[in-house]
Formats: sequence, C-alpha cells, structure tokens
Amino acid sequence: MPICSDVFRVPPGYNAPQQVHITQGDHVGKGVIVSWVTPDEPGSSRMLYWSKNSQLKNTAEGIVLTYKYVNYTSGDIHHCTIDNLELNTELWFSTPLFDTKYFYEVGIGNTTRKFWFRTPPNVGPDVPSTFGVIGDLGQTQDSNRTLAHYELNTLKGQTVLFVVDLSYANDYSFHDNTRWDTWERFLERNAAYQPWIWTAGNHELDFAPELGESEPFKPYRSRFHVRYKASISSSPLWYSIKRASAHIIVLSSYSAFGKSTPQYKWLRKELPKVNREETLWLVLVHCPLYSSYVDHYTEGESMRVVYESWFVEYKVDVVFSGHVHAYERSERISNIAYNIVNGICTPKSDQSAPVYVTIGDGGNLKRTGDRACLLNIDYWSVLLADVFFFFIFYFFLFWWSCSMIEPQPSYSAYREASFGHGIFDIKKRSHAFFSWHRNQDGYDVEADCIWLHNRYWNSSSPGEASRSRNKCSISEEEVSQSQISSYS
Amino acid sequence: MPICSDVFRVPPGYNAPQQVHITQGDHVGKGVIVSWVTPDEPGSSRMLYWSKNSQLKNTAEGIVLTYKYVNYTSGDIHHCTIDNLELNTELWFSTPLFDTKYFYEVGIGNTTRKFWFRTPPNVGPDVPSTFGVIGDLGQTQDSNRTLAHYELNTLKGQTVLFVVDLSYANDYSFHDNTRWDTWERFLERNAAYQPWIWTAGNHELDFAPELGESEPFKPYRSRFHVRYKASISSSPLWYSIKRASAHIIVLSSYSAFGKSTPQYKWLRKELPKVNREETLWLVLVHCPLYSSYVDHYTEGESMRVVYESWFVEYKVDVVFSGHVHAYERSERISNIAYNIVNGICTPKSDQSAPVYVTIGDGGNLKRTGDRACLLNIDYWSVLLADVFFFFIFYFFLFWWSCSMIEPQPSYSAYREASFGHGIFDIKKRSHAFFSWHRNQDGYDVEADCIWLHNRYWNSSSPGEASRSRNKCSISEEEVSQSQISSYS
Repeated sequence: MPICSDVFRVPPGYNAPQQVHITQGDHVGKGVIVSWVTPDEPGSSRMLYWSKNSQLKNTAEGIVLTYKYVNYTSGDIHHCTIDNLELNTELWFSTPLFDTKYFYEVGIGNTTRKFWFRTPPNVGPDVPSTFGVIGDLGQTQDSNRTLAHYELNTLKGQTVLFVVDLSYANDYSFHDNTRWDTWERFLERNAAYQPWIWTAGNHELDFAPELGESEPFKPYRSRFHVRYKASISSSPLWYSIKRASAHIIVLSSYSAFGKSTPQYKWLRKELPKVNREETLWLVLVHCPLYSSYVDHYTEGESMRVVYESWFVEYKVDVVFSGHVHAYERSERISNIAYNIVNGICTPKSDQSAPVYVTIGDGGNLKRTGDRACLLNIDYWSVLLADVFFFFIFYFFLFWWSCSMIEPQPSYSAYREASFGHGIFDIKKRSHAFFSWHRNQDGYDVEADCIWLHNRYWNSSSPGEASRSRNKCSISEEEVSQSQISSYS
Repeated sequence: MPICSDVFRVPPGYNAPQQVHITQGDHVGKGVIVSWVTPDEPGSSRMLYWSKNSQLKNTAEGIVLTYKYVNYTSGDIHHCTIDNLELNTELWFSTPLFDTKYFYEVGIGNTTRKFWFRTPPNVGPDVPSTFGVIGDLGQTQDSNRTLAHYELNTLKGQTVLFVVDLSYANDYSFHDNTRWDTWERFLERNAAYQPWIWTAGNHELDFAPELGESEPFKPYRSRFHVRYKASISSSPLWYSIKRASAHIIVLSSYSAFGKSTPQYKWLRKELPKVNREETLWLVLVHCPLYSSYVDHYTEGESMRVVYESWFVEYKVDVVFSGHVHAYERSERISNIAYNIVNGICTPKSDQSAPVYVTIGDGGNLKRTGDRACLLNIDYWSVLLADVFFFFIFYFFLFWWSCSMIEPQPSYSAYREASFGHGIFDIKKRSHAFFSWHRNQDGYDVEADCIWLHNRYWNSSSPGEASRSRNKCSISEEEVSQSQISSYS
C-alpha cells in the first residue's frame, strides 16, 4: 500500500504513542508485554493498567531503546512488561462476559492513548481457545484484506500465531526502516488488543553488510520483545509459551539449529518437559518442513533432518509455517527412516507425525503503489494503480498456481495459491478444528478445514479426514459426539 | 595430561608472554596475526619484527583484551597484526634456503621472548606447498604424540589446517578455562613458528546457560583472532584465505548455514569468485558430511543438504573434517539428486565431487591424569596412571573399531580408528599427495595415502586410486610423468 495510505496514519497529538502492540509476557499468560513508539521525544516508558472490575490504576515501568539502520534512526521504542494479571477461571468464551478485561494507557506525560486486552484462561487440558494463524503479511492491499477478514472472523481478545515474515521492509531500498513503522501502525488496530506471538524469518534478518549492517535481526529484535527467558531460552528467536490448552513452541529457521547449538539444546530439553496432561500443543517454525510449491522447495530439508524425528517422538500435533506465499496442508507423514545407506527416503503415512500447515499467504506481494503516493497523485490515480496491480496480482496468482510440484505429492493433502488466514480452534483435549479462509470468499467461508485429533489424547484415532469445501462446518453436537466416541 | 605436565610449563620471568601462536593475517599470506598472553599485568601489545636479511626492527601495535567465564578471568590476551611482509618469490622449498624468514619479539617492557616464522610464496597455480592436517587435538598423552609426530614429519615454517576441536576445556568442570591456557602453552612450540588456520567446532561453543554463560564461542573468539574481513566475511567463524596454490575455505557447522543466513550468503558469493586459474583449493568444515562411524553418524546431513551441490558444482577438491575421533577417507561421491519425491538418495560415484577426509584423531580422549597431578603424586604414580590409561585407551580404540557402520558403505574408501595426523602436499597444479600418519607407526610411515587429481585442472582424469599401505611413496619422476600425461 502507498506510504500515505490511511491504514498507516500517525495518531494525532504531540508525541502520541504509535505502533502499539502486545504479546504474551510470561510463560502461562499472566503477563503481557506492551510495546509502543514515541516519535518526537522519548517521553515516558511508564504505563497505567487496570482491571475492568477495578478503578485502581496500576503503574508499570518499561524500558526505552532506539536503533540505527543505515541512515534511519528509529523513534523511541518502549517495551513494558506487566505481570501477575488475573486469569479467567471460567471456561473462556463459555459466557459472553469476559471478566478479565484489562485497560491500559500509554504515553504518560504527553498525548495518551488507551487500549484494552483480555487475559486467557488458566492453563488446562479442556480449556477451549482460538488462535488466528497469519503468515507473511507484509503491507499490501491484500495484507489489509487478510487482516480485515481475520478481524471479522474472530472476536477481539484472542491470540494470533504469526508465522513470519512481518513487514518486508528489507524489500525496499536500503531496507527502508520507515516501512517497519508503517507496518506496525497498520497492525495496531488488532495487535494492540490481542497478543501476537512472534516468529522471526528471513525477512527479519536484515543482514546487509554491503550497507554496513551485519547484525542479524537488528530491527526485529529492537521492535519485538518476547519473554523468552521464561521458557529457559537464551534467545528471543526460540522460546515457548503456554496459553489455555496449547503449548506453543517457536523455532528459528535462520539461527543455528544443528546438534550442540543453543537452539538444539533448548528444544531437546523443552520437548520432554511439555506436560501433555495439561496442554495440547503445537510447534511453529518458519521455513516449512514439507511443501510442494516450487518456490522454496526443499529449503526445509536442513531443519527436517535434525528435528523431524523429535516431532514424531513427542507427537507434535501441528506445525504452522510461513515463507511460501500460498496455502498447503499435509497429511500426517514422516520421513525419518533414512540412514544414508538404506535408500528409504520417501515420506510415508505416520499417525504420530504432525500435520504441516503452510500459511504464508498473508498478503505480501512486494510493495505496490509507492510511486503514486510519493508523486502525490490523487485518489483516482491510486485507484487506477490498484486496478493495475489487481491484474498483476492475478498474474502472480496464476504463476503461483503453475508453480507447484506436479503431480501433487502424496504427502500434500490440500494446496491452493490464494491469500488468506487460518483459525485454529481448540475445542477440547481431544479435538481441534483448523480452517483456512481465502480473501476472495466471505470471511466466514472455509476453503479448507480439518478436524485434528490430538496425538497424545487421541493417538489411536484412525486419522483425520478433511472435508470438501462447504462441508467444513460442524455442529457442537458433532464435536461432543466425536469426543465421546474417542473416550469410549 | 596432568596440569603440572612439563608440556604446559609457564615460561620463566615476570609477566613473560605465553601461549604464543600465529595465524595468517590477510588474504594472501603477506600478513600474520601474532597472539600471546601476559599473565601478571597487561604489559605492552607492541611487538618487534624484522627480516632475517635486515637488522632494521619494525614495530607493530596490537590490541589487548580479557574475558571472564564463570569464575575464571583470563590473562591479558594480545593480538597484533603485521602486514605487507615480503613473500618468497622463489618456489617454496625448491631450495633449502628460505629467504623470507622473519623474527619477532613479544613482551616489550618486561620479559621478552623471541620467535620466528617464514612467509609463504606468492599465490600461484604451480607453487608447491605442504599443509599439516590435525583435528580434535585436546591435551592428552596422545595429543602430545600427535604433535611430536607432526613436528618430526615436516620442516618448521609451513602451515597447519586445524579442523577443530581445540582444547576440550569444556569437558572439564565448569568449562575450566585454565585448560585453554594449558592447551595454548602446549601448542606454542609449534604454533608460534607456523600459522595454524583455525576452525571452530562444538567444543568451542562453550554455551553453558546453566553456568550463566550464554554467549556462544566466547573463549574461542577472545583467544583466536583471524582476519575474516579480508575475505568479506562478517564473522570469524567462516572465512577464506589463499596460501601458495590453495584457496582455503573455513566453514562453521555450529552457526546458522541455511538459505538466507549470513554464512550461506557469504559462501554463495565466495565460491564463484575463487580464481581456479590461480589456486587449487579445498574446504574445511568441522562436522563431516560423510562418515561411517556410529559416533556422530548422520550429524552432517543438515549441512550436506544445503551445500553439497555447490561443492560439486564448483569442483571442490577435498573437504577436511574433524569431530569424529578417528580417520576416514571417502571415494569421490555425491548425493544431490534427491528431491523428496524421487527416492534417489544413495551416494553415487561423482568425479566432480570432493574427497572427504575425516581426521578428528588428534588425540583427545577426555582428560586423564589430572587427579595424580592435583594430589601432587610423584612421577612413578603418574607413570602408573599413564599405564592404566594406556589400557583404557586401547579399550576405547577397540570400542571405536567396533563402532563403525557395517558393512563398510561403498562411499567409504578407507577407515581406521587410530590417532594420527595428515600431510596434504600440493605438488603442482594437477596433483597433490595426501597421507595419513598413525601415532603407533614411525612418523614418516603412511598408513593411508592418495594422489589427488585436481578437479579443475585435471577433471577428466579417471579418478584417483589409493595405494595399499607401504606403497604410498612415489618418486618425483612419477609425479612429473603423471602430470605430463594429464596435460597431453
């Protein structure tokens, strides 16, 4: 979208906080990290927060930092962690009244802005929870459509699993970091109200020694703080959180992950200590381990040969990935028998293996419309540019559609090159429902879906069958019925 | 070896420089980095150096640093780079007189110590040069035997390609960093006189968050400086140098190496710009891409699937690796046809592929004898301990011998679990001779050897045949003859 687009607007007022976003601030959901940027002067890193049920305002003190990148200097970036929040002891969404709504106010001392969020319920195996799944969002018209669809598709106050890439600022000249600012302003309308769980990818590396920038992940690490130490991680690039009935593991495809490396050692300890009596869980990883698109094909092999056997051993339920700008869902398969000399290297059906979902179709198609904006061309020209880029978009779609490995490999259950988002809806300990929503459909139309049977609680199930389009919807009665039968 | 062993002795004199070692200090061999430690006070980072043919003493100013690791504080570590040295314009070793011998003196202001080195010849395709190849040295009695054999086997003033691991300090309690000091004192007798080309491995990670140490490679990066920026690298963990007729590439198995990472981007640019009209070349990498020992089996797969096709495309001649504490030499093979769905995943003969040499048999067998030393037990007790550990050693050898993948895979040409070192002797543009020398033999006995036909200059050769033991020696006449036939 052009840089003067309305979705990138700066909030009014001197030094008004902008780019407000939140993420989980501890291991179980009692904490929140609130981040914002003050553009004119540092201002205060203090914030106020209070429960909906209380007028007693609490104060929290954050930190402030800036960074430079080529000839760009960031605004003052504030990160403030609030802890020991009250969790919802009722089953989440079992009632339309959410008791644990918190309000917060940032920008103390100058223009202030007020937002709110809700805490999740206590961690437990039968706590329903719903996650949005978005990847490779960028800042195009399609990014905007994806976010709008997601907003319509879910009640505010839940959580987004974001499987990178974020702003695509590195695709602009000199990795134009003002595009990090526009992206975070674009996101604020959602990310200020519900936690986004961050994963870093290749577009976050911002490694450009030719520009004098050799510190990987510099803008990302400055802008997105996560509470990685709560999961005994040594890096914000890999960590875990528990949220309701999910144990979420974030990995970094662009850090070292081989044997003996910090990430490997962390994951080796993390997986056995996941309490499957308490949490159904999933793994996020950027680069897909399984994909059948030509673009980025086989790039995940390097990580697959190291971690896949663990994913099977510990019965990971689902792996969400971005990176490939399209949608794909795999069968439950593994490829872990290969030992160099035995020639066994074909993925085969494996009911202990995860379902791999590639959902890097948030909307990024490189930048469009900037010139129209910079030249101060009027609305109609921008519209014309949009129409033009609409055709370009379909050309890309066509190209993508053609750029699949043919014939469709047997490990690939469903694939389609359309923009969209996912909803991962954990119903109970035994079942979760994942649906994929294309931008060209109504927001609530499921273009693909699958009932996931939890691998730990329900591993003897005969496997999940996806439903044909328009048949995804399922009644709550059917959920209860399927659960009962799985226990019997 | 016990910490009080004579090979670890501290040089006499107040603040006498110790742990002196050199490495190449630029891209072509005109520079040298001299490193040393002053134990009592910082002293001076200045050094003097002068040519054998001149009494004019030059001064160079270095840097000094210290580091802390758990409860250890290092001495003052000095690194001083000297540049623009005169190269030997004669063919190296074509005459017993080396014209470009340089002397250097460190420890200015207190006790001084004097050493020397020789510069290599100008870079060129027909410049003979000889490299020692040592890996996983450690600081055991066998480490000492390996180094002694190497010293007997080569004239001082050449170069060591060191394919990690170095000190094994991390195997001691709290990663006892005094074991870095002992190791560097042990090494000084050789590494002060000829450059050692460093590669970092898993034992250099020293990643121990449980001890509050979460910065990977901290001791290694403090102690071993390399001129990585001369090869446009952004990290000392991967870089290249040219030396005589060799282009040497050092990679890091324990840093990120997947697509889009800094190491990947560097290697993608580095390989095409190697001037094969000028340099025959090789790649060093720690974790072997091919090995048939049970220990560490398949650990190299993650890097292999990323880089092997490049090694074949750019006709890398030989890859030296450590990590596995044994010796192995591969056939020229590749395994790059696999695309997930075709099932083609067996290594096959490929004359464009490198020979993979695993030579992590420098001597490390964990620490032995420390208790005898710490308890101040006399010489005979130490000897008794040595005899005891001698049997332990053979037990380990037996265990190793049994711990091979059976039957021997077809990609493995020769393997044996003995300690030793290698000599990589580049004769002319077309031929190099690699030999492996076991510690239990006379130093000049070749337990395995191979004539390597350069892949660029001699790629149409029908492949190299290794010779049976005791038949490795070849006359210079035979070299000339084989070269003539390869040109005709």
